[in-house]
Amino acid sequence: MRLTAREVAEKIPVKLEGDASLELVGVAAPERAGAKHLIYVEAAKHAGRALQSAALCVIAGEGISLPGKTVLRSTQPKVAFAKAAGILLEARPIASGIHSTAIVAPMARIGEGVGIGPYVVIGEDAHVGRGTQIGTHSVIGAGCWVGENCKIHARVTLYAGMRIGNDVEIHSGAVIGADGFGYAFDGNAYWKFPQAGIVEIGDQVEIGANATIDRGSLEDTRIGNGVKIDNLVHVGHNVQIGEHTVIAAQTGISGSSQLGHHVVCGGQVGIADHCTLEDQSIAGAQAGIPTGKTIRSGQTVWGTPARPLDKFKEAYAWFARLPELGERIKKLEEKC
Amino acid sequence: MRLTAREVAEKIPVKLEGDASLELVGVAAPERAGAKHLIYVEAAKHAGRALQSAALCVIAGEGISLPGKTVLRSTQPKVAFAKAAGILLEARPIASGIHSTAIVAPMARIGEGVGIGPYVVIGEDAHVGRGTQIGTHSVIGAGCWVGENCKIHARVTLYAGMRIGNDVEIHSGAVIGADGFGYAFDGNAYWKFPQAGIVEIGDQVEIGANATIDRGSLEDTRIGNGVKIDNLVHVGHNVQIGEHTVIAAQTGISGSSQLGHHVVCGGQVGIADHCTLEDQSIAGAQAGIPTGKTIRSGQTVWGTPARPLDKFKEAYAWFARLPELGERIKKLEEKC
Amino acid sequence: MRLTAREVAEKIPVKLEGDASLELVGVAAPERAGAKHLIYVEAAKHAGRALQSAALCVIAGEGISLPGKTVLRSTQPKVAFAKAAGILLEARPIASGIHSTAIVAPMARIGEGVGIGPYVVIGEDAHVGRGTQIGTHSVIGAGCWVGENCKIHARVTLYAGMRIGNDVEIHSGAVIGADGFGYAFDGNAYWKFPQAGIVEIGDQVEIGANATIDRGSLEDTRIGNGVKIDNLVHVGHNVQIGEHTVIAAQTGISGSSQLGHHVVCGGQVGIADHCTLEDQSIAGAQAGIPTGKTIRSGQTVWGTPARPLDKFKEAYAWFARLPELGERIKKLEEKC
Repeated sequence: MRLTAREVAEKIPVKLEGDASLELVGVAAPERAGAKHLIYVEAAKHAGRALQSAALCVIAGEGISLPGKTVLRSTQPKVAFAKAAGILLEARPIASGIHSTAIVAPMARIGEGVGIGPYVVIGEDAHVGRGTQIGTHSVIGAGCWVGENCKIHARVTLYAGMRIGNDVEIHSGAVIGADGFGYAFDGNAYWKFPQAGIVEIGDQVEIGANATIDRGSLEDTRIGNGVKIDNLVHVGHNVQIGEHTVIAAQTGISGSSQLGHHVVCGGQVGIADHCTLEDQSIAGAQAGIPTGKTIRSGQTVWGTPARPLDKFKEAYAWFARLPELGERIKKLEEKC
Repeated sequence: MRLTAREVAEKIPVKLEGDASLELVGVAAPERAGAKHLIYVEAAKHAGRALQSAALCVIAGEGISLPGKTVLRSTQPKVAFAKAAGILLEARPIASGIHSTAIVAPMARIGEGVGIGPYVVIGEDAHVGRGTQIGTHSVIGAGCWVGENCKIHARVTLYAGMRIGNDVEIHSGAVIGADGFGYAFDGNAYWKFPQAGIVEIGDQVEIGANATIDRGSLEDTRIGNGVKIDNLVHVGHNVQIGEHTVIAAQTGISGSSQLGHHVVCGGQVGIADHCTLEDQSIAGAQAGIPTGKTIRSGQTVWGTPARPLDKFKEAYAWFARLPELGERIKKLEEKC
Repeated sequence: MRLTAREVAEKIPVKLEGDASLELVGVAAPERAGAKHLIYVEAAKHAGRALQSAALCVIAGEGISLPGKTVLRSTQPKVAFAKAAGILLEARPIASGIHSTAIVAPMARIGEGVGIGPYVVIGEDAHVGRGTQIGTHSVIGAGCWVGENCKIHARVTLYAGMRIGNDVEIHSGAVIGADGFGYAFDGNAYWKFPQAGIVEIGDQVEIGANATIDRGSLEDTRIGNGVKIDNLVHVGHNVQIGEHTVIAAQTGISGSSQLGHHVVCGGQVGIADHCTLEDQSIAGAQAGIPTGKTIRSGQTVWGTPARPLDKFKEAYAWFARLPELGERIKKLEEKC
């Protein structure tokens, strides 16, 4: 996409300082940018990178002086840059038109401008909203409801009956709606507990490659608007995730746990069943939260079992000094 | 499926108290149930949920009084409910008939009533037992042996030569038989060690979405009857897993480790190579079991490196008190 | 493949002691071997396994006496065995010829002897080097460059624009090039940060089943020659991995971290963003390396947060003795 600096500034929107007619053709890191690439700088200490860049136009925070550059001034330069990139970078379509090898059930309802790639299979009574693109080999089960302008990459599985909102992006290999891991033990063998619920995913959600989100058992699994889920994350049955919660790679959330809004989970966090992570709580990478535990709103935890971050770090510092403590105790014993 | 309460009671089987002619059409959670849904209650303290439910028929444990309800009385209400659900809930078929786009090798042997979905590929000399269903885009490698009444969901890979028992369910994205992770290091580069064994999976096994089970190297990888494996679990080459062992999501089992029968692994457990988890041992979530370690029969362990649960918890309680201990040592030093 | 012991000895190459005309048809473990299988023994203490084996030919380390056997003598018996297996075991081809159902874009460039399986989709302007095999249902995005003699198993996704070297093996379910996990937070919602870089993979790399390697954001993600990546590993955007580095199953490497050459990561290691693991460093299984941390060349670390192995083990031994330490402090307090 070719736009002038003015057009970009108006769309984000931010204030423009400099040459409004400058042509922009993309975004880049300062070191890789050509003259027509937009770059950004968040902090004054990185102004040098921007000044040395070939880029003529820079999104910059307040008070960062960039003589010779056209500046798009923003209090949130990274957000402004992300928005500008969304405008300037033309995403390669995942699919356009309906490929002749796609198998679309007769009673499926396909909206306007939907792209369906080769070998896609869409089941009976599925609904695909307008503008949604579905990549090669993806499977949309019977009765699924997929909203508008979604990007479903190649090789995604939606089991039957799933509900996906608008502007959702699902990466390759993700599996939405497999049976949850629930059994009744009779003393010798495990009997499959019914896994009859669905997964309901809100708007503007992104789901990473090879992530798995299980259907509910007797309830439903729910992912709120704006939630971002990284690669290889596991979300168990009946889990509820509030809006704008972010979950980094390889985290696992066991059955019936509830995450509030704006929760942050680092990578490889383990959340056992029936836990509650209240709004805006944070679980540090690899933290382990035991069954039934509640993390209070705004609290940050780390370690397994997870403890408040400050307390964990203080105890861990002492952990490192344990050989010394042991020595000191020994000396005291000799003395007393 | 529509059945009377009597028919369900006879099939599970459990004792019926109340209206034997009541029609049942499915199962549900008490709060979501309609009059014709079967619900269950395990403990007297949850009797209120059942009483307030619209459901007319309840599976309940001994001694739980539910006036006005038809009761299916069981000493194992959850097991009985699971069995009833297996009867009342009609699973949507994964595939029925052999789809015209499926590519079945001429010398493959396909049993009666097998369902093969769109774009499935079945290799030469593969055997698929009667009643088995294979979902869209799944790949059954040459020479595989798949038993009867299996459910292989969409987008599953069986590498060539794998052996799958009867009544096995494999979820979307699972990969059975990829090469194990074995190399010989020559001081600079890694040479691939032969990965020529197979995976042999017993009956009534369930394997979660995007799980990976590697083929043996010079031995075979074996999964016993009744084993349940959750999403994103990794089973390395030559691993042996005994009957009715349960492995929660994201657990990893390294090469040549052996798990007995009725072992339980929580989520994200890491088992290094050549470990032994004896029968009925339990590894708590995120436990890490170092190379060559044996966990004794019936023992429960936690932590990394894993220790007996009680000892881990006791030590961890002291860990939390380390700042206090440090203070007390300091005071003693000042005093003495 | 049928070869004489002499032919194998010359190809590896190693010194032959015994019957040079012996026919070899494969490799095996000593206990499973027939007369014509090649076996190996690394240490004198395992000589008995070789002597009791039906195998007539043994690769053995210096100074291991094996009367009655033909011996291929090597200072690196396991390496020699791996090389011999590479010669003697004929891998079943993943695909041979171009299947009629494969969809190869008109402008894709396909080398000589390339095998393309059923339902493979290869995008516009993609390049596939000679001798490469691509398994059923794999997707090679537009503009990808795949080198020579690669083995891409069934159900692999390469997003558009990826670059893969020669002799690379990618297992089923792996996803190369999904968007990295990067967002700009505006105080309420997360805006997608551009993920416009590529993944560049060197020669002789192996990537495990269901592993995910994300494309760079404004830089590229790079995997050096000879790197081995196990199942379900996550490699984040902009990560750089040096030559001959080995990464065991379920490890996660966050954005912009750098691993040197000959680094070893155990299973389930978590590396946060912007970390550096210098050449030949080792991260023990489940180690957690916090944001921005550097592990020095040759250092071995364990624990979360990771510490030098010796120190971690020493402290952990004291951790186990904490109840005792607490008791001793109490006694001292009573005494003083």
